[in-house]
Amino acid sequence: MSKILFGIDIGGTTIKCGVFDEHVSLIQKDELVTDKNDNGKNILRDIAAYITKTAKVYNCGAGDIYAGLAVPGSVMPDGVVNKCVNLGWGLVDVAKELSELLGIDSSQFAVINDANAAALGEYWNGCGAKYESILMITIGTGIGGGLIIDGKPVTGYNGAAAEIGHMPIADCIDYKCTCGKTGCLEQLASATGIARLAGKKDAKTVFDEAKTGDKAMLEIVDKVAMYLGKALAICSAVVDPQCFVIGGGVSAAGDILTDRIKYYYRLNVFHPGKDTPVIRAVLGNDAGMYGAVRNVFISEKE
Amino acid sequence: MSKILFGIDIGGTTIKCGVFDEHVSLIQKDELVTDKNDNGKNILRDIAAYITKTAKVYNCGAGDIYAGLAVPGSVMPDGVVNKCVNLGWGLVDVAKELSELLGIDSSQFAVINDANAAALGEYWNGCGAKYESILMITIGTGIGGGLIIDGKPVTGYNGAAAEIGHMPIADCIDYKCTCGKTGCLEQLASATGIARLAGKKDAKTVFDEAKTGDKAMLEIVDKVAMYLGKALAICSAVVDPQCFVIGGGVSAAGDILTDRIKYYYRLNVFHPGKDTPVIRAVLGNDAGMYGAVRNVFISEKE
Repeated sequence: MSKILFGIDIGGTTIKCGVFDEHVSLIQKDELVTDKNDNGKNILRDIAAYITKTAKVYNCGAGDIYAGLAVPGSVMPDGVVNKCVNLGWGLVDVAKELSELLGIDSSQFAVINDANAAALGEYWNGCGAKYESILMITIGTGIGGGLIIDGKPVTGYNGAAAEIGHMPIADCIDYKCTCGKTGCLEQLASATGIARLAGKKDAKTVFDEAKTGDKAMLEIVDKVAMYLGKALAICSAVVDPQCFVIGGGVSAAGDILTDRIKYYYRLNVFHPGKDTPVIRAVLGNDAGMYGAVRNVFISEKE
Repeated sequence: MSKILFGIDIGGTTIKCGVFDEHVSLIQKDELVTDKNDNGKNILRDIAAYITKTAKVYNCGAGDIYAGLAVPGSVMPDGVVNKCVNLGWGLVDVAKELSELLGIDSSQFAVINDANAAALGEYWNGCGAKYESILMITIGTGIGGGLIIDGKPVTGYNGAAAEIGHMPIADCIDYKCTCGKTGCLEQLASATGIARLAGKKDAKTVFDEAKTGDKAMLEIVDKVAMYLGKALAICSAVVDPQCFVIGGGVSAAGDILTDRIKYYYRLNVFHPGKDTPVIRAVLGNDAGMYGAVRNVFISEKE
């Protein structure tokens, strides 16, 4: 093969690896276990070994290899990763380290934050493919997001754009966020936040009971949807994307949540954005891998 | 002269006209009265007459003339203006109409929303010149805004990006906004909103009395600053700009307002944005004219 591309999404538990041919079609998918020992210092070594082994299978040499990597932390404008708490990383120059490990030019690597990668993946190859701009909100243990305008992730000056979870959205809530502030959306509408609001062991239980018609749980779902709908309405007033995408584990709750989010979105949005679709992500855990490989081309262009 | 450029900012009362040479240096400045009779149908005719007269003085023919126009309304992606209430306009294709009036190719005109133009003006030639991205909030009778990333205005899919005034920011306020919703920032922190909160005839009186140490008025200023600081913190979580710019008539209140906005911004912002500067605009009423002319080059590039 003349060219091989990797889309690698580094998570706290597993590393999702996609192998793509020169037409950027997926030809192989693997999962590595994330080795978090010694502050995650084996992670890049494991990835390098995987790349070497896989490239060999496809008869590709150093000059043929391109890899996009998504990381669970901030990526600074120079591509250096600034802290990935879940991996144990401090400052890590991923492209430089992989370049040294593999003997490949560092320009053949592109690094992106994982939430931005997920949004870029959905934009390129998922539910956002027919839109020019999307804002994706990922609701899991925490709340993250990614903003894509004209095919390019908007990452922000400090790498903190689309950090929707840390919007100060509530006036009167005392929960302190992991970021040190209060009133963050994440404290109200993440899986953790939902379970706490309801006094249940997890968010799934809340939605399951709501689906059986439990009044108290339906009220919790309504409240969570109100915060999320309002957050999207606020995002519309700031960037007015063509489409909103909802992803992450909590989005699996389905229409019982998304229908109410749409209701509160329309109630709160400035009228030009009233018809903006709010849709569910489709790529699931593969989104980051797709976005990571797509980012290789975006970084090349600059 | 080989080339003449116009930056024309069409307001509800006056039309501000800047004439620029081929190096985009300002060489002349004029003001026309906005003729709002007959649903503003004379406005473009008056502008065409002004352009013809001025180009003649500088010995420029049709092929040498470029004009950027800022309008107080939404501009759709195809450049057509969709409603300017203050001018009496419905759907107006400004570039096409001027092209017909002047016998100049429509590609020599570029149309932009006035709040985006003001932000672009400050970004290019004002207080934002040393930053890569800025979000400007303009606080006057209403609240508008403009977002510039990498030199380009982010206008939004419906032309409604940076409509900061219509962020649903307050939970518990009953004032109905002109847009039909409640809880809009504009109802709390525009000149109109400030005067109403304080029960005074205008916002200037509120700030003047606060400056003499009046406790009740100081509390109003603090409340207004709280909403504005929180709004900027929210914007930081969405787009993380390198700098915030505060413009419009209310910004003339000075440090008594901006110092408190900065305080509440820092209190509410997600930590990566905590050092983002919040500065005052410097171009005043000329910002739109500068942004309008700058937009000629941005539209050309696409």
